[in-house]
Amino acid sequence: MGSVPAVDLDRLVADAREGVPRAVGRLISLVEDGSPHLRELAAALAPHTGHARVVGLTGSPGVGKSTTTSALVSALRADGRRVGVLAVDPSSPFSGGALLGDRVRMGEHATDPGVFIRSMATRGHLGGLAAATPQALRVLDAAGCDVVLVETVGVGQSEVEVVALADTTVVLLAPGMGDGVQAAKAGILEVADVFAVNKADREGADATVRELQHMLSLNRREVGGPSWRPPVVRTVASAGTGIDDLVTALDDHRTWMADHDRLGEGPRRRARAEIEAIALADLRARIRELSGRAALGELAGRVVAGELDPYAAADEVVSSVRG
Amino acid sequence: MGSVPAVDLDRLVADAREGVPRAVGRLISLVEDGSPHLRELAAALAPHTGHARVVGLTGSPGVGKSTTTSALVSALRADGRRVGVLAVDPSSPFSGGALLGDRVRMGEHATDPGVFIRSMATRGHLGGLAAATPQALRVLDAAGCDVVLVETVGVGQSEVEVVALADTTVVLLAPGMGDGVQAAKAGILEVADVFAVNKADREGADATVRELQHMLSLNRREVGGPSWRPPVVRTVASAGTGIDDLVTALDDHRTWMADHDRLGEGPRRRARAEIEAIALADLRARIRELSGRAALGELAGRVVAGELDPYAAADEVVSSVRG
Repeated sequence: MGSVPAVDLDRLVADAREGVPRAVGRLISLVEDGSPHLRELAAALAPHTGHARVVGLTGSPGVGKSTTTSALVSALRADGRRVGVLAVDPSSPFSGGALLGDRVRMGEHATDPGVFIRSMATRGHLGGLAAATPQALRVLDAAGCDVVLVETVGVGQSEVEVVALADTTVVLLAPGMGDGVQAAKAGILEVADVFAVNKADREGADATVRELQHMLSLNRREVGGPSWRPPVVRTVASAGTGIDDLVTALDDHRTWMADHDRLGEGPRRRARAEIEAIALADLRARIRELSGRAALGELAGRVVAGELDPYAAADEVVSSVRG
Repeated sequence: MGSVPAVDLDRLVADAREGVPRAVGRLISLVEDGSPHLRELAAALAPHTGHARVVGLTGSPGVGKSTTTSALVSALRADGRRVGVLAVDPSSPFSGGALLGDRVRMGEHATDPGVFIRSMATRGHLGGLAAATPQALRVLDAAGCDVVLVETVGVGQSEVEVVALADTTVVLLAPGMGDGVQAAKAGILEVADVFAVNKADREGADATVRELQHMLSLNRREVGGPSWRPPVVRTVASAGTGIDDLVTALDDHRTWMADHDRLGEGPRRRARAEIEAIALADLRARIRELSGRAALGELAGRVVAGELDPYAAADEVVSSVRG
């Protein structure tokens, strides 16, 4: 892949720990690009992490994720907390896909030295979002963020995996979008710690809240000890309404987790997901190297010809990887 | 995992080949559930496939994918072709998330014996969409479908992988959604063989078509021989307008691929993706089995404590898998 450009990692990590935005941005870029230095970077960051609390925000397009994220940033900043924002969402304004108005609205935080905003575009990176997101979170953690908001669009497998990395997950809904049902389908209901019904001034908000409460009453998990019951918060993020309630709900969840000695769950889940993703990426790279493009192509040709079924072909690939 | 229920695969495959809808549905359910019989099923189907042509449809939520899919089904049926529809999309009406109107509209095909409609809900299945979709396509192929339409929402890594499995891929846009930019971001531009600007009776349609044509002129791929230039078709799917043009564009692409001796590319791509996905799922299962929940949890704990970086932890996992 060409020569590896020299990177003074120790310097970058030291600067990032001082909160130098350029250094933070550079380190996340390394993560995003699947830099050959990731292994060193992980080792350099490891001792300086463990402070940041990760809050995931997810929901279908149009529910107001970016607006809510922005309003949360304002509320957390007013409270003196350092905030990171990681937008893992191809339709996010941070990745360039949305209306100017949204971009400008988030732009107000762009000049605040207590806020780091970053979009993740990890398409094609080996290990994908599952590997890159925990790494980026570790960079923001080392940079002194108290809270990192991870915004993802609530569709697609990778996105659900990312949501599962948070300490506290907020699922956003909006009235009249049939989102309750969608959320249940997408397995999002199970990962939600807090629900926010945004655009709560619109018609149908009461029905959405009711539907949600009903679904929650059916989904009580009583097995394995006491369980947290996700609160439902009403917000109008564009007007800042209900955002304090949302912050309170987030803090309540954190307190509950602390009281039940479960604060370690999120960090362990992230570490586990990252280890698995890195190991799988390694094995996938071995699949591509060892069996070689030609060999895999030949196997595919035999499957197409009906001479071999794909499981038998996969067996050959696995055998060659396990050498 | 409990006992494996007895399944008369030979009978199911024979019935599916006769076009018995229940048998087709049952086989796709086996695929979707990650049945332990998948290996036998793949072997049983292998000799009976290779006929169906796979057309992918993708685009952001709201561009009218389901309506376009439904209109395409009508046009292909009028032409006497047997059609399969695979909806890989959590927001699809087939998976229960959309408006009643859409569902009713697609419902008209539900009673047509020449149409198989199926949604894929593969969350949690090892190998995910990348493995399950080609398998489901093979079932529909064996069932005698001439064309299988795969509808996916154009966001998320898994969805892009699914789109890449088609012989011909249609990217849908709608005026005024800034989708041109979004499509480029999402890497969708590269996989599009045909563009459809739907809702072409709305304001801004001309601008969307122009923007698209401009982007296409910048993206000409001349390396490695002649390349297909994706046509841009205007449609108003809800009124059936432009659907014949869309069918013509699909057929033109097929003819061009045949003329350039490239019809084998799609099937080989699907076989390859499937082999890789199955091999990776196998390796992932080995990661979980061999290293064991406790062992992986212990590694995660050491990473959280800063004693070990995730790459070193992943090395241990890979070593144990390669054992």
